[in-house]
Amino acid sequence: MIREALQKDIAVMQKSSPVDLVTETDQKVEQLIISSIKGKYPTHSFIGEESVAAGASSVLTDNPTWIIDPIDGTTNFRSSRFALIGAVFCAAFWPQIEFGIVYSCIEDKMYTARRGKGAFCNGVPIKVSGQQDINQSMVLTEMGFKNDPEHFQTLLANIRTILTIPVHGIRCPGSAAVNMCLVACGSADAYYHMGIHCWDMAGGAAIVTEAGGVIMDVSGGPFDLMSRRLIVASSRAIADRIAKAITEFPVGRDDVEG
Amino acid sequence: MIREALQKDIAVMQKSSPVDLVTETDQKVEQLIISSIKGKYPTHSFIGEESVAAGASSVLTDNPTWIIDPIDGTTNFRSSRFALIGAVFCAAFWPQIEFGIVYSCIEDKMYTARRGKGAFCNGVPIKVSGQQDINQSMVLTEMGFKNDPEHFQTLLANIRTILTIPVHGIRCPGSAAVNMCLVACGSADAYYHMGIHCWDMAGGAAIVTEAGGVIMDVSGGPFDLMSRRLIVASSRAIADRIAKAITEFPVGRDDVEG
Repeated sequence: MIREALQKDIAVMQKSSPVDLVTETDQKVEQLIISSIKGKYPTHSFIGEESVAAGASSVLTDNPTWIIDPIDGTTNFRSSRFALIGAVFCAAFWPQIEFGIVYSCIEDKMYTARRGKGAFCNGVPIKVSGQQDINQSMVLTEMGFKNDPEHFQTLLANIRTILTIPVHGIRCPGSAAVNMCLVACGSADAYYHMGIHCWDMAGGAAIVTEAGGVIMDVSGGPFDLMSRRLIVASSRAIADRIAKAITEFPVGRDDVEG
Repeated sequence: MIREALQKDIAVMQKSSPVDLVTETDQKVEQLIISSIKGKYPTHSFIGEESVAAGASSVLTDNPTWIIDPIDGTTNFRSSRFALIGAVFCAAFWPQIEFGIVYSCIEDKMYTARRGKGAFCNGVPIKVSGQQDINQSMVLTEMGFKNDPEHFQTLLANIRTILTIPVHGIRCPGSAAVNMCLVACGSADAYYHMGIHCWDMAGGAAIVTEAGGVIMDVSGGPFDLMSRRLIVASSRAIADRIAKAITEFPVGRDDVEG
């Protein structure tokens, strides 16, 4: 459905800012995924980017919950044919993530992982680079305009700090989900981000963990799916170094209503 | 040759900094391209990234000159399978660029253009987005660590200024040549960079121009192939707006020896 839509001229609607676009396709894909799963598991819960935008809850309960991001990288999507766009879904069987699926649409790569069973790209096992040296590391992050001047300042200061370590390079490809998969398959060595949502992280979290990667909070503490922030890396050494380098800014939580 | 090498473990040599890597493949591809062309045009001149690194001149003369970058995005290349890697060559028949070729290896996209004959991707005509509104624009640039604190400061301040306009988004995919092609085919609306070389720009310059794009110096003046800096955009309005927004820092010229 996404690949088809990319061929067409897309009627793009604007959400909160020019950086945050959502398309008809976004909503259609989410409905397709939810209705397919509901048919088989009528009692399960769902947290979806579009449903939440429409007012649904994003609090995890004890009920098996599917977390869905129909199109991760909608800004890329609008620029049809821009490199990286992911379609994500994942099942969080509270309190752990049971499996994750990220489909990188343009590249036609399907990343999958199930807890304890390894991670795969198009069926082929993948693993992280194992890189331990921060100076040799390709680091991914994303930058967008923040209306809060202090947060925006910190976001840019963090990029400066990471570049100055120095690292091998920083790239901003535009899809959180695909960024996590790039770390999972060894194409990049780390990815950090503050201000994303559980549906951006859930699928990739399963994949990068099963690929032997490290996932943690930006504070250096345990990863929290609802915290809106994370570091993933090919090794603990690199994850710890990034956690030490970056300054936190408050981003709220996904599971706090309103 | 590049696609083959990507499958292997690559012995990477270090050039001037961790961000600036070059591989055996880089040199082999350049030699392959130069020897192929020399067979047909023995009197022509060449400017190649690897030849220049080995001490050859990069001054354009009246002699027909081929400008070659065997692997643009060597930092991406090292991270095998990272999204965007270009192989570039182009013929500058002084004082104008006669044609340009950029091959985006991972995506298997061959971008081509000849002066007055249009631009193509895998044989299909391409054109720029035509976007006129900077607030709706996807802007590409690249950031690397600079040893000169003042230049580094300006590089980051420029990113801040562009984000604050605000634009639709900034991406840093990692290959100058492919970035120009992304603008040429409408996937992005602008790309600016200071500190790149003529071999990063020459092929893409022909392609983006023939695709209906605007190319200019960061000062807003005419594009200068040897100036190590450029703006390309889908429209003059966007190019002008970026030229107005960014602050220049000195990067030297490609055609000044030593």
